[in-house]
Amino acid sequence: MIETPYLLFLGDAPDQLAAKVAQGIRDWRPENAVGQFRLDGCKADLGLPDMTLEQAKATGVKTMVIGVANRGGTISAAWREVLVAALEAGFDLASGLHNLLRDWPDLVRAAEANGRTLHDVRIPSVQYPIANGEKRRGKRVLAIGTDCSAGKMYTALALDKSMREAGQKSTFRATGQTGILITGDGVPLDAVVADFMAGSIEYLTPDNDPDHWDIIEGQGSLYHVSYSGVTLALIHGGQPDALILCHEPTRTHMRGLPGYRLPTLEQVRDTGLALAKVANPDCKVVGVSINTQHMSEDEAKAYCAKVEAEMGLPTVDPFRHGAARLAAALEEI
Amino acid sequence: MIETPYLLFLGDAPDQLAAKVAQGIRDWRPENAVGQFRLDGCKADLGLPDMTLEQAKATGVKTMVIGVANRGGTISAAWREVLVAALEAGFDLASGLHNLLRDWPDLVRAAEANGRTLHDVRIPSVQYPIANGEKRRGKRVLAIGTDCSAGKMYTALALDKSMREAGQKSTFRATGQTGILITGDGVPLDAVVADFMAGSIEYLTPDNDPDHWDIIEGQGSLYHVSYSGVTLALIHGGQPDALILCHEPTRTHMRGLPGYRLPTLEQVRDTGLALAKVANPDCKVVGVSINTQHMSEDEAKAYCAKVEAEMGLPTVDPFRHGAARLAAALEEI
Repeated sequence: MIETPYLLFLGDAPDQLAAKVAQGIRDWRPENAVGQFRLDGCKADLGLPDMTLEQAKATGVKTMVIGVANRGGTISAAWREVLVAALEAGFDLASGLHNLLRDWPDLVRAAEANGRTLHDVRIPSVQYPIANGEKRRGKRVLAIGTDCSAGKMYTALALDKSMREAGQKSTFRATGQTGILITGDGVPLDAVVADFMAGSIEYLTPDNDPDHWDIIEGQGSLYHVSYSGVTLALIHGGQPDALILCHEPTRTHMRGLPGYRLPTLEQVRDTGLALAKVANPDCKVVGVSINTQHMSEDEAKAYCAKVEAEMGLPTVDPFRHGAARLAAALEEI
Repeated sequence: MIETPYLLFLGDAPDQLAAKVAQGIRDWRPENAVGQFRLDGCKADLGLPDMTLEQAKATGVKTMVIGVANRGGTISAAWREVLVAALEAGFDLASGLHNLLRDWPDLVRAAEANGRTLHDVRIPSVQYPIANGEKRRGKRVLAIGTDCSAGKMYTALALDKSMREAGQKSTFRATGQTGILITGDGVPLDAVVADFMAGSIEYLTPDNDPDHWDIIEGQGSLYHVSYSGVTLALIHGGQPDALILCHEPTRTHMRGLPGYRLPTLEQVRDTGLALAKVANPDCKVVGVSINTQHMSEDEAKAYCAKVEAEMGLPTVDPFRHGAARLAAALEEI
């Protein structure tokens, strides 16, 4: 569990896209994002107050989060100087970079000297159990996609927001690095050892109130041969009561696999539901989320209407249209 | 790659079953098993010559394999005394125990001092790639089960033996600890990090002659919620041309999951084949392997005949009837 609120470190980000982790925190947990810290030449701006470490401390910040991708597979000396100063100022550090904070002796020394914690969220910090398959109280919904990077995390976060706004009880359950940094907790599923994947998701989504929904962040796709095993572990460990299908209509092949065509939404519905029923015979497919970022407003509306008619399920782009109709569909379960 | 041949260490095995890893090596790779080493009180016997370390050395042994389960979650001082002596005699050590050899300083010291290798086959020794899904030359067959421990490894080893005897080109590809110790090589799939599971199976089954078969050892089951993700990674990383269905008919529930009933063979066929076709559209289900160990000879015959009629596929217990009919079915692909 990463302590909040955060100061978002943007470093020397070459553009806004490089700071997308920080942007995600700002968009989805604005209450956690009290300020930004930028180095000379930073081209990203979250519209948050630029703060010195002293100002952040005075505002109650607990953790400095690295909200930017690094370059060249290293953590530069310029970055480390700031990170050491942040540890000395009494902040924990959190990072989802492939280069681990814990591999830098200067950071380890400063953390130890100041009693601070280095959170490398790419690496599990828990010894997860093997899944026992037992039924848990409370409800769970999982987004499954025709492909990787089809909008599953965005869909889950938007759904969580809509449900909270509607007064429903819900918790976004992160299974990837960005989601973990946004919420401060979760399972870095892609780094979990094979035997413990499903168990890690059981651990992530424990017993809860009967009317509480865990919104589980999806990963991969049953049809993406590189990561399909991770997706199935999510389905069987998560025991979802509801599935939402995610799709990005302009893809010409599976992400990173030029020889693989996308499955249809019908295929994902049928395969996903049959497998989900192994763990939860009452599971239902409740809606479709379309990522229409590469379509015009009219195209997006028409495409969603067409899918809605074909599938007989509420179909929205949660970014354009909000997730209220998906939240409403869950209310009916 | 573990160097052969082996001296099989049986320690103080309380019964024959405790030495089942050694028994597997003796049954399937008798040419690798030149002798056994037993401590006082050992109740297991493989029918191999009992050898001193000196005798084993003279016979050309390269590696001492721990072929017995340990007790109490430790490697006892009595064992370690022998293991250190084996390293000093010039043997490598290989073990599939949960307690790693490398965690014992006396073993590490003796290995370093004598230039020997400690093989802990539970832990991957390779940084596997992420799967790229590209088509590989040569053919592959995978056994998938209605449940865990339904006879998949036995089926694969028996099939490999039948194919070699029939002059077909085949290689058994181990994906678990016992299989790795039997053959000296393989991928400990249950210990591979999630993102690299499918890639590890691509690595295990590379390009080969067009008429060569990799016989891939199966793991878990698509219907076993604790391990199903591992099974799907095998299916998508292995790109099988052929599937063999494995079943143990007397199970009343999924292994370790009292609340879960077994799927039917038809369900495993349909679900497994549909998922396999994502990676290899030409994949076919070619046969059924029944584990009839809890049935009489007559019951076993009748059961296999019934399944053969229902499924329209060659159905055998490879232990009782041999795997020749399964090997013949592969010839037709």
